[in-house]
Amino acid sequence: MIKTVLFDMNETLLDLTPLKEAFGRYFQDKHVVKYWFSKLLHSSTVIGGLNDYVDFGKLSEAALESVFIENDKELTEDIKTDILGTFKHLPAYDDVFEALERLKEAEIKIIPVTNSSNEMLEAQLAHSGLKDLVDTYYSVDAVERFKPFKNMYQFVLEKEALEADETVLVATHDWDLYGAKKEGLVTAYIKRKKDQYNPYYLKPDLKETHLVRLIEEIIQYK
Amino acid sequence: MIKTVLFDMNETLLDLTPLKEAFGRYFQDKHVVKYWFSKLLHSSTVIGGLNDYVDFGKLSEAALESVFIENDKELTEDIKTDILGTFKHLPAYDDVFEALERLKEAEIKIIPVTNSSNEMLEAQLAHSGLKDLVDTYYSVDAVERFKPFKNMYQFVLEKEALEADETVLVATHDWDLYGAKKEGLVTAYIKRKKDQYNPYYLKPDLKETHLVRLIEEIIQYK
Repeated sequence: MIKTVLFDMNETLLDLTPLKEAFGRYFQDKHVVKYWFSKLLHSSTVIGGLNDYVDFGKLSEAALESVFIENDKELTEDIKTDILGTFKHLPAYDDVFEALERLKEAEIKIIPVTNSSNEMLEAQLAHSGLKDLVDTYYSVDAVERFKPFKNMYQFVLEKEALEADETVLVATHDWDLYGAKKEGLVTAYIKRKKDQYNPYYLKPDLKETHLVRLIEEIIQYK
Repeated sequence: MIKTVLFDMNETLLDLTPLKEAFGRYFQDKHVVKYWFSKLLHSSTVIGGLNDYVDFGKLSEAALESVFIENDKELTEDIKTDILGTFKHLPAYDDVFEALERLKEAEIKIIPVTNSSNEMLEAQLAHSGLKDLVDTYYSVDAVERFKPFKNMYQFVLEKEALEADETVLVATHDWDLYGAKKEGLVTAYIKRKKDQYNPYYLKPDLKETHLVRLIEEIIQYK
């Protein structure tokens, strides 16, 4: 039986559409935002893998600087703010509120866990209206190691006195679920976009395209 | 004094232009190839970070499958071969032959080290005409852990009985140099394209845009 749900934030609970729109104001190629995000994730994984830590916002900025240089475009402070500022104002996906309500009814704890800094996480929870709906929340600032490295999953389990097999991670990122699965957590994939779950990563225990359906399966799990 | 030079292969010694041209046959958006490569690197780093290993070619294929799915395009076996087959036939950059010759004259050992499989590495060395110019070569197949994790750098040092401070890694990838630097190797960045060296990675000891100039600096180093 699942007693706690950990939720990834960016792209899992929060819709990145404003970020995509911001990139669209400076680039016509629709893959630029994907390239930037993938470059950012690669850098966070490299840094975590080499046992270092840097604020995710700083890494976002460094990746953005490179993308502008690669395209011979000037990145002004205004543009930086226009693009990266969207992160603080991302709306929750439509299915999130009902999903969290169902968890509350079922008396299952709700804990967002994110690679973003604690400051960003607080801002995101406040702006999206999710803050009052969660039990607590953690940024990787607490362990200074990005997901999908084990430090974060282990920290939350210890801090909240959770058993791994009674805890599920809900995420739209296969690499995040892969890391959590390695630590024995139950994993639930919410498919937010058309792509392929990496066939070489550990498979999720559950998979859905609508968060309320996924939550129903989590409530009934085992 | 530097006694051995380790060379990264893809994009460092070998020119990825044929790969970019192949993507151009299926996508108009010039960022697709960058997105795909970044996605591939992210997956190799995630897998290495979680202590697993998969052939780099298989990861290349998985990333390609996702990119086609994301674009509602059908990926036939012919297209797969057309794109990924270019990897085996990449030419060396113009400055490579003279650079390797200078190292030979200076009696410095030349050792390619790559994330590609051993089979791919052999094919690349043969097709590019570099095979007879190198002393030996290693794929991460030997350690089953991708660069930039320490296993590969440590393996080559031990296997070849090299001192870290007499060994330099030449690469165009900041993340590779960062990993090598962490293990105490000297690092030399060959800038092959316009982008930003990640400001949060350890800086390289040397940096040049032409390989022969970089090699001259390596020969005179310390």
